[in-house]
Amino acid sequence: MAGTPVYHRGPEFPALLRNAVEGVQEVFPTAYDVFLLSCSGTGVMEAAVANTLCAGDRALVVQAGQFGARWTDLCMAYGVEVVESEFPWGEAVDPQVVAAALRDDPGLRVVFATHSETSTGVLHDIASIGEIVRGTGALLVVDGVSSVAAHPLPLEAWNVDLAVTASQKGLMLPPGMGIAAVGPRVWKAHLRCRLPKYYWDLERYRTSQEQGRAPATLPVTLLAGLRAALQMLRVEGIRNVWARHARHALAVRQSAAALGLTCFARRPSNALTAIVLPESVDGLALTDYMRRECGVVVGGGLGDYRGRMVRISNLGHVDDAGILEAVGAFEAGLRKAGWGFEVGAGIEAAQCALTAES
Amino acid sequence: MAGTPVYHRGPEFPALLRNAVEGVQEVFPTAYDVFLLSCSGTGVMEAAVANTLCAGDRALVVQAGQFGARWTDLCMAYGVEVVESEFPWGEAVDPQVVAAALRDDPGLRVVFATHSETSTGVLHDIASIGEIVRGTGALLVVDGVSSVAAHPLPLEAWNVDLAVTASQKGLMLPPGMGIAAVGPRVWKAHLRCRLPKYYWDLERYRTSQEQGRAPATLPVTLLAGLRAALQMLRVEGIRNVWARHARHALAVRQSAAALGLTCFARRPSNALTAIVLPESVDGLALTDYMRRECGVVVGGGLGDYRGRMVRISNLGHVDDAGILEAVGAFEAGLRKAGWGFEVGAGIEAAQCALTAES
Repeated sequence: MAGTPVYHRGPEFPALLRNAVEGVQEVFPTAYDVFLLSCSGTGVMEAAVANTLCAGDRALVVQAGQFGARWTDLCMAYGVEVVESEFPWGEAVDPQVVAAALRDDPGLRVVFATHSETSTGVLHDIASIGEIVRGTGALLVVDGVSSVAAHPLPLEAWNVDLAVTASQKGLMLPPGMGIAAVGPRVWKAHLRCRLPKYYWDLERYRTSQEQGRAPATLPVTLLAGLRAALQMLRVEGIRNVWARHARHALAVRQSAAALGLTCFARRPSNALTAIVLPESVDGLALTDYMRRECGVVVGGGLGDYRGRMVRISNLGHVDDAGILEAVGAFEAGLRKAGWGFEVGAGIEAAQCALTAES
Repeated sequence: MAGTPVYHRGPEFPALLRNAVEGVQEVFPTAYDVFLLSCSGTGVMEAAVANTLCAGDRALVVQAGQFGARWTDLCMAYGVEVVESEFPWGEAVDPQVVAAALRDDPGLRVVFATHSETSTGVLHDIASIGEIVRGTGALLVVDGVSSVAAHPLPLEAWNVDLAVTASQKGLMLPPGMGIAAVGPRVWKAHLRCRLPKYYWDLERYRTSQEQGRAPATLPVTLLAGLRAALQMLRVEGIRNVWARHARHALAVRQSAAALGLTCFARRPSNALTAIVLPESVDGLALTDYMRRECGVVVGGGLGDYRGRMVRISNLGHVDDAGILEAVGAFEAGLRKAGWGFEVGAGIEAAQCALTAES
């Protein structure tokens, strides 16, 4: 990324773009069209709304957390009528509730869901939701921002029509690039979709990409970084990458249990682990200590859980030592906060999980 | 930019954002609110449309080139009725035509203009256009993508209500960040503006920025680069930066004249120089030679001028040697194409311009 930027109208650009598209297809995995946009995850989520619906259409949002709720905000901003199936934070969406909602209202045009919910650490069951949506007239649109590269998200097999992700998560890059994978049913919906859009119009990306271009200037340094990141993922092998995320997340979960703490997610994601703190522990002071004294940046609780939770991510470029460092910092912070446990119990549990024969 | 990325929810972020906002204010110059968005120049142009108008409103687009015409495309995508004052490529917008258009149709809510038109190398007279718009009910929105840091764009003095720019031009960074400077009359327009938006909603940026945050993840590596770029501009002094761009652009223009060629722009920008090629010279082969054999990347002609023009930019991080390198490569390419002139005439003219006492 520190090299001379590739000129986005120059002769080297088409190969750089093609490499990125093909690599991201392997990571999902999918054979759908993949487009890169200069924006954050929220931006490409907005593109998903703007390319599939009309004002006044009805859409189902199934959600159980802060990022799931963003689909509702986006739909409402565009005048889409939202039917919301909301589940308590920490729980997974019940696919049968999705089935009932679609039975009750066959006019629902799109189902919006979240694969890995970053605010709760829950992995929602997209495969089952996709099975239910299959055969209805609705499209399934999935936020894969924090799941892609941590979990497989096989779009065709799971009947997902459009999925989005972003550069700064499993793809190990700085923020600044949103990614959309777009299946054939979306192009049909696009024909009737009248929501105003220009920058978010995926049809413009498709047309430009046929000429090896993008319709707006792309963040070419991130594209150069993506080339390197994809090469790293290829060398490790995407199945091994998924297995590494599973092993690391398990180590964090088992550490939390060994420290007498509860994982928040009923159906945990392998991208991050949300851990509920004891009432006696000040979560803001704990995460502050971990950052200042240990150089370990973890998320705190969001919304109502502010100060009552830590969220430890193992997404992206993390090795076993990184997990031990995070767990060690967490343990030290808890000890400083006066929480009682056998010193080293968290690290011991993590080491056992990391070194277990699979 | 190669350092550890600043966490966008962490404690170092607010100071980084504030530094960026204040530095960009000095560069325009303006005291308006400045917002940074994760997007290209086109994205932040779309934000300007979406925050000032309703569907069915009428807006005036005054343009004379490919980037000016983008305002029309953006307005039309949002159902805004466009009154277009189009001038031939290479000419500057006549402010009296703007005055007549506003007299003829007092219902025009926004005037969209371009400061430096990158497709033609023309600098449009925003000061005069602003004087005409002043006192009418219309807002003035200006594309400053390729002018900011090359020319002063004093928003308050020139009666500009909203101006946009992007990271990869005068701010010397890779692409990936759009910038909007937003004056008080825009916030009034925003109250009645009903165009659907979420990511582009500048009110959300204003609210977040009061807490030192952005409503979407910003490209933090570009923010780190911007901190360095702004420091470079401060050390040089913004008046000296503008003077350098004037001196460099003059050197390129005088070189072109010495080579027997015509500058395309009637009112030339100091960000780039568009030079019309003789009919006998193949522009695509010329720019290809300059890139391959000299490592000098210049723009070709756009639209109808494809293959018939070169556009030599001196925008951003360029020194006198860079100008001589570009002029030398251009001269060599022309010679290779069989165009007759005294060898070294272009370089001589450039050196005279660069070393003239001001």
